[in-house]
Amino acid sequence: MAPTTDDLQRWTDADRLARPARLDILRRRMSEHGVDAYFGVRRENTRYMTGFELGEGEEKVAGNSGQFLVGRDEVVVLADSRYTVAAVAQCQEARVERVYNDLFARWPKLLSSLGPVKRVGVEAGFVSHAMWQRLADGAPDVELVAVEGWVEEQRQTKEPAEIERIAAACAVADAALERLLPRIRPGATEAELAIDLEWEMRTNGAEALAFDVACLSGPNAALPHGSPSSRELKAGEVVLFDFGAQVAGYRSDMTRTLFVGEPTHENQEIYSLVAHAQQSAIDALAHALAEGSRPSGRELDGVARDIIRAAGHGDHYGHGLGHGIGLATHELPSLGMTAPDVPLPSPTVFSVEPGTYLDGVTGVRIEDLVLFDAAEKKMERLTLFPRDVTVVG
Amino acid sequence: MAPTTDDLQRWTDADRLARPARLDILRRRMSEHGVDAYFGVRRENTRYMTGFELGEGEEKVAGNSGQFLVGRDEVVVLADSRYTVAAVAQCQEARVERVYNDLFARWPKLLSSLGPVKRVGVEAGFVSHAMWQRLADGAPDVELVAVEGWVEEQRQTKEPAEIERIAAACAVADAALERLLPRIRPGATEAELAIDLEWEMRTNGAEALAFDVACLSGPNAALPHGSPSSRELKAGEVVLFDFGAQVAGYRSDMTRTLFVGEPTHENQEIYSLVAHAQQSAIDALAHALAEGSRPSGRELDGVARDIIRAAGHGDHYGHGLGHGIGLATHELPSLGMTAPDVPLPSPTVFSVEPGTYLDGVTGVRIEDLVLFDAAEKKMERLTLFPRDVTVVG
Repeated sequence: MAPTTDDLQRWTDADRLARPARLDILRRRMSEHGVDAYFGVRRENTRYMTGFELGEGEEKVAGNSGQFLVGRDEVVVLADSRYTVAAVAQCQEARVERVYNDLFARWPKLLSSLGPVKRVGVEAGFVSHAMWQRLADGAPDVELVAVEGWVEEQRQTKEPAEIERIAAACAVADAALERLLPRIRPGATEAELAIDLEWEMRTNGAEALAFDVACLSGPNAALPHGSPSSRELKAGEVVLFDFGAQVAGYRSDMTRTLFVGEPTHENQEIYSLVAHAQQSAIDALAHALAEGSRPSGRELDGVARDIIRAAGHGDHYGHGLGHGIGLATHELPSLGMTAPDVPLPSPTVFSVEPGTYLDGVTGVRIEDLVLFDAAEKKMERLTLFPRDVTVVG
Repeated sequence: MAPTTDDLQRWTDADRLARPARLDILRRRMSEHGVDAYFGVRRENTRYMTGFELGEGEEKVAGNSGQFLVGRDEVVVLADSRYTVAAVAQCQEARVERVYNDLFARWPKLLSSLGPVKRVGVEAGFVSHAMWQRLADGAPDVELVAVEGWVEEQRQTKEPAEIERIAAACAVADAALERLLPRIRPGATEAELAIDLEWEMRTNGAEALAFDVACLSGPNAALPHGSPSSRELKAGEVVLFDFGAQVAGYRSDMTRTLFVGEPTHENQEIYSLVAHAQQSAIDALAHALAEGSRPSGRELDGVARDIIRAAGHGDHYGHGLGHGIGLATHELPSLGMTAPDVPLPSPTVFSVEPGTYLDGVTGVRIEDLVLFDAAEKKMERLTLFPRDVTVVG
């Protein structure tokens, strides 16, 4: 299940080949907005535009390492001495500048090294206000322009090698749940199953988790956000796993709700409802694809939501239908009630994950990742663990 | 090794009892700066001031959940529907306000619910520039005041129940490395030892890691920042483990450099040097304590650094001597060449971790956590795994 050295090399090469086109799109946008340089700080955007790899959360202790500047002709990656070796190896098309506690003092020279710079776009949703002020003070003649979502919008359409990696992460997660099955039985605790599932992923191909494993049993499954507890699984209840792997930077996300022993009538009914809602959204997408049209995320959300509402559970389904996924677990496009009503991007990968939660009683969510490619008229489920009612224990 | 239910309850109670005094200090500072309310967003500060618990990195997907306002008489904690149950349970002295995608619209009313507010201190190092702008636009009559380090300065002195939790995290890490020892032998890979060590901690009392385990062998030990690789341990080399556990929110941090098989003369020499430098810094602290004086972090750094320099390795020791630890792995005080030359806070806990790194050849670091309590004339090593040369394999 683990990716081979050949896989990793192929993906690295593909990224390297793709990066000039990614930068072209960004530079077009810069010039449309009269911006001479782009200053990026978000971990995922750094990797996408430069190849520099930081682990989740590492940006908080990496200082300015991994922050980057895109000029008209050149890309500059910042790295302190801890990261320069890695940066030079990973960012072969960029100039690596060693920066340690002196970014603000060197800021004007860094900008002018890119040519004449009057306006710099700065990732305003990710740079702290304190840093913004210091950049402004460091080069008072340069205008800082708050930009949000530019690279994130690019990242929502996926290249073939990106899709391959998401699919590889899905396969790691599928296999891990398969191997966990014999251990899912009455008496096992949520916490112990969660860590076992994590272990299965991380020792079989996942370089990291996409996010902490959720394992919620019985009434806990009604908590849309819950941590695994010392609660023991009981026969007749559900157990909900929401989990994902990371492979070569790209992530998966899947939810399965399993029955522990024979399901109650109520659990079975809710399960059927949620499964029907999910399949209907997927069918609607397939139908649109066959017709050559592209629905919006809001429309797909409506398909699933109408079904759950019609069954009287509208108030028991408080979240959106899904989200894009890639270098980040949650990214564009958004599929929800308040998402912009515009056609889905393509090709893209997103989750389809309706749920129904009865407070204090039980909860069901079923989540799959779907690849959608309008040009190729292709649609494919990437998470392949069976969705049919699985009774364990 | 795992904390008992009684431990957890005792710590929760202690925090609850301590919080009014923590808030008093913050409010004094607010009034010194003419600030009527404080808006906090940093995860660790939220937990310290309100009791609301978010996991590492969770703040990135929690929306405004966990952000908090301190007014003259009241504390308000923000939580969306996913977090309200937890917030109400964890923040019994605070008012929990349900906020979902509407913070900026409700910002003026939230502020006025605290009484007359003209100036709000905002954690400028942790709030994004985009958020700052939206807060400013949301209440144009209220002045936002950029504040940095207020709560962080408070957090550097530790209460008894905080020290207990750091010590408990140290004990989890000590025991984990002890159990790993038989598996450390030539042929084992860095990556497999790192995940085994993680597993030992997380299945024996650690609710999380303090940070990703570093396991670096042979020449890799010279990389001050390195990830475990598929490299196999070889006899005659060193293997360096830098790792920490988290118990009830508080963290440990320890580095041990072990010999795989019989050490070479060079490795043994460097090890002795680093051990001597570390012990000298600790002795200097003990000496000061006995005399009733409090050294600065910079002075202690100097004690260790002078020894390494005198041995001709000044250029092979590029980082500071240590850092405070608590809810965050790296916090105040800072012990380094450029740290402010002021007496250490007390009581406090910090790392003492000199190292010597020979590029492409080998590296040694020895790191312990030390409790320093000037009033009690008390000093104690909290990481108890033996430091004497350990030959494994």
